[in-house]
Amino acid sequence: MTATQATHTKYDDELAIRELVDKWLAATKSGDFDAVLRLMANDVIFMVPNGEPFGKEAFAAQSKQMKDMKIDGKCDIKEIEVLDDRAWMRNHLDISITMPDGKTTKRSGYTLTILRKNPDGNWVIARDANLVM
Amino acid sequence: MTATQATHTKYDDELAIRELVDKWLAATKSGDFDAVLRLMANDVIFMVPNGEPFGKEAFAAQSKQMKDMKIDGKCDIKEIEVLDDRAWMRNHLDISITMPDGKTTKRSGYTLTILRKNPDGNWVIARDANLVM
Repeated sequence: MTATQATHTKYDDELAIRELVDKWLAATKSGDFDAVLRLMANDVIFMVPNGEPFGKEAFAAQSKQMKDMKIDGKCDIKEIEVLDDRAWMRNHLDISITMPDGKTTKRSGYTLTILRKNPDGNWVIARDANLVM
Repeated sequence: MTATQATHTKYDDELAIRELVDKWLAATKSGDFDAVLRLMANDVIFMVPNGEPFGKEAFAAQSKQMKDMKIDGKCDIKEIEVLDDRAWMRNHLDISITMPDGKTTKRSGYTLTILRKNPDGNWVIARDANLVM
């Protein structure tokens, strides 16, 4: 592989990861939680303050509980580094959660995420530390 | 490079990262903050709940303010993945902070860390999301 090809691939991977973030936000906003689940590895681990880490099943269960809420997020990608079939990314998130009664809560904070490129070429979230409070 | 050599190198890198964690805890416990600073990249970014990310200078300033406290930490390394000259690591931390008046506070939580291998062969912390509350 020439240097040009390698650079091009890395750039493609970075674009694919940016698309993953856009898809995640759009699917969350529209309540399409199956689409959100497809963007994470089966062995994904999410870490949050004040709680034990949890995986895909717990994420799915939480999403079902939140199905009557509207979640609108904005993600400012601060940095992405692609390392062959792995990558890490640092984001700032602004989230707005609207309850069925119309009451809206806003939260914001940073995330640090490890991503993995599946053999099918699709990037998925593998580990995520979420400091949103 | 043969597969055996590659595996050996990865194993060496993992050992070096485990040693970095041991050195960090020992230097923190003994109050040798210069030694702690040598274990992080110059452009390190630390992320914590309820605050903006900060770098090496702010870490050093915080450490000076905490010089009369005794900090004892235990780190349970949950996973390390080495990717050539980068790595990521997920830990569970138990920290005990003893104030000059003898009062002790205990905190625990998870961390997700990105590490970088410097050209001199030394591993340093490059990004760190700290969920310890």
